[in-house]
Amino acid sequence: MPPNENRTPTTSDVPPSPPRAVVVVTGSELVRGDRRDLNGPFLARELLSRGLDPARIVIVGDAPEELEAALRLGIDADLCVVSGGLGPTHDDRTVETLARVLGRDLVADPTLEGEIESVSRGHAERLGRPYADFAPGVRKQASLPEGAHSLGLAGTAPGFAIQSSGATFVVLPGPPSELRRLWAKALASDVLRRLLARAHQPARRALRFYGVSESAVARALEEAGGDGDGVEATVCAREFEIHVDLVVREAGGPRADSIVAALRKRLGEFLFSEDERTIAEIVLELCRERGLTLATAESCTGGLVAARLTTVPGSSDVFRGCVVAYADDVKTRELGVPTDVLAAHGAVSAETAAAMAAGVRERLDTDVGVSDTGLAGPGGGTPEKPVGLVYLHAAGPGGELASDFSMPAGRETVRARAAVAALHLVRRLLSQSHDGSV
Amino acid sequence: MPPNENRTPTTSDVPPSPPRAVVVVTGSELVRGDRRDLNGPFLARELLSRGLDPARIVIVGDAPEELEAALRLGIDADLCVVSGGLGPTHDDRTVETLARVLGRDLVADPTLEGEIESVSRGHAERLGRPYADFAPGVRKQASLPEGAHSLGLAGTAPGFAIQSSGATFVVLPGPPSELRRLWAKALASDVLRRLLARAHQPARRALRFYGVSESAVARALEEAGGDGDGVEATVCAREFEIHVDLVVREAGGPRADSIVAALRKRLGEFLFSEDERTIAEIVLELCRERGLTLATAESCTGGLVAARLTTVPGSSDVFRGCVVAYADDVKTRELGVPTDVLAAHGAVSAETAAAMAAGVRERLDTDVGVSDTGLAGPGGGTPEKPVGLVYLHAAGPGGELASDFSMPAGRETVRARAAVAALHLVRRLLSQSHDGSV
Repeated sequence: MPPNENRTPTTSDVPPSPPRAVVVVTGSELVRGDRRDLNGPFLARELLSRGLDPARIVIVGDAPEELEAALRLGIDADLCVVSGGLGPTHDDRTVETLARVLGRDLVADPTLEGEIESVSRGHAERLGRPYADFAPGVRKQASLPEGAHSLGLAGTAPGFAIQSSGATFVVLPGPPSELRRLWAKALASDVLRRLLARAHQPARRALRFYGVSESAVARALEEAGGDGDGVEATVCAREFEIHVDLVVREAGGPRADSIVAALRKRLGEFLFSEDERTIAEIVLELCRERGLTLATAESCTGGLVAARLTTVPGSSDVFRGCVVAYADDVKTRELGVPTDVLAAHGAVSAETAAAMAAGVRERLDTDVGVSDTGLAGPGGGTPEKPVGLVYLHAAGPGGELASDFSMPAGRETVRARAAVAALHLVRRLLSQSHDGSV
Repeated sequence: MPPNENRTPTTSDVPPSPPRAVVVVTGSELVRGDRRDLNGPFLARELLSRGLDPARIVIVGDAPEELEAALRLGIDADLCVVSGGLGPTHDDRTVETLARVLGRDLVADPTLEGEIESVSRGHAERLGRPYADFAPGVRKQASLPEGAHSLGLAGTAPGFAIQSSGATFVVLPGPPSELRRLWAKALASDVLRRLLARAHQPARRALRFYGVSESAVARALEEAGGDGDGVEATVCAREFEIHVDLVVREAGGPRADSIVAALRKRLGEFLFSEDERTIAEIVLELCRERGLTLATAESCTGGLVAARLTTVPGSSDVFRGCVVAYADDVKTRELGVPTDVLAAHGAVSAETAAAMAAGVRERLDTDVGVSDTGLAGPGGGTPEKPVGLVYLHAAGPGGELASDFSMPAGRETVRARAAVAALHLVRRLLSQSHDGSV
């Protein structure tokens, strides 16, 4: 039985549903879980943003029958994007398998062969090996299914697009950077442009919350009318924030507006952004707007907050530096935390966090300092101070804010949450300063 | 045409091939690329390590026809593990769809219903809502396909296992921590134990290289005889290291030994480990064995090296702290980099890197200091010092090592490579000190 027998056909007498796309990712290391697939999610986001419906991502290894079965399922879709299996060796079977699935012959393209030969002769020379070693691979890689349009080379592998009866196949190399480069070329190709012309690019709306549970946001969304009528909504807990994303098709605009208005009204105190910037980007922009510099003093996060801030290009005009004070005497030497504060309250305390934030502001000569100290575990917990307890402190020209949390979780979860909490604490401090209401 | 018509049947008159497993992951946010799937790779690794062949990972959203098609493909496998779609709402369709695919009725299980009701009454009470709101969801979640064995609850959702004619289905909740908990119960179930008894758990061998290209390792592997005859090999560039993993079935032991011996001989100078520890773990253990403490002085990595080291539980007995000196005057104030070194050579120079490493050793009072300074971009490059140029320096009681690289790449790639390079530089320094040969 064909797997999509229930699917409404896209014909002119039914309301247009978005073209259906499937992604086939090949790679033994991916299907074994040895490496995480980046291409499937990238392609899915790309397809969605262009008005296609990413219906399925299939990951297969290099077993021929698995690859063939996965490609056969692509025939029922409007678009099938395939990643990987284009190399010169016998394990790279995507091209020959697709030709068989489409009932096309493999045809060597002399122009393509010339291009691949020229790249391969360069390889041979650099490696000091005879070109004859490469020639069979060159012939193999220059052979595409009849009717395919080359999208250009990635190394020695050509990406290509080919139209079957109903489906368009786009075949791209596996390395993520190469895949992205040739995907841009695929988008510009005639075959794909014809397909994209049938799609209506949906609008996207983003709402970002912090400090509220996923279930509370999901409930508010449901009470605002929920999914449907041209609006697809996802509520997603991501890095301790709750992200609501609306994909808005044709007539869904007014419903999307009313959902957004309802969520703003109901959860406004937790809503920190209506765009896709990261909290690190938001903090850096808040500082930049006010002409403030920033430093971090980190214990349990061990440099994670600084690492997130410096991920952002241009962060150096705001961010001056960081002290990771893992050992207690480094807290004293480098951040000026008084030894009697450490003795009286312990390294994991609100008092130490406050002294660290003050210390890093002074030592690194910045306007704003933010600190954390906590027990990331797995060892070191006590009944009074359990693993997962973290204190945070932010200090700026307009005032100070302290925060803490305690969560029974693994080391990396505690650290990641502390890093996010530190950034949100700076955001709250600067937003409040702005209102003059700290 | 059934998709697996070419597959060799597992019968007693052919050599046993590993039982074939497929993973079906459901979730709209996953198939749209909004969130990365953790369950597919986790389950694939689990299956592989228990001697099953993870043949396919399929990610689908909550469209009923997509889910049904994906589950139908599971019937051809020996084992199909399904994640997600077990919740109380109408969008959670895994159970009813699987019942339809298997031709089984849905049967309410009174014991299960009692357990779910008790959890739901607790929810209702905490939320101050009438239990009547929850009752339909409870009845839905307590209904399983006829013949299913419950694996216990995750929240209000039961995981379960069910045997069809040839295939075993294991259905687990979507949240990764819940999935892992119920997967452990599935492994202990009779249904799965019978299946696992047919599998032969393969051995795994790991070889980790640094400083050599993926293609050189792949060539060496090919020249050592390559894949096949009971050995499956993957060569994978991961975080600027090259990882070779061998999965060794039954009679593959001698071949695996000869491959390992050949790679050791050919690429020994780049081989840094034959186990799965991260480079951060290796560096911390090298320090610990020698009783050495460690600090980092970071510019372009902005805390990434410290963050990686402190990911490792127990790192605090070796790692004392870090100074991220993003601004030049922080390099001088906090690390003692002489202003004339900065003036004469620039912040991005071997001389500055050396002064930073010496400075952090002194300031943080550690035995070993490692530093980096570079241009992560995208701005700031010049013809002499292009974006992607990074200098590194490691200093310890036994001597010093300097290193640098230049790569035309994006900001995060340059930063990640610099962080890995810093850790490998410490490894080299300590390995050499050990031989007394710096």
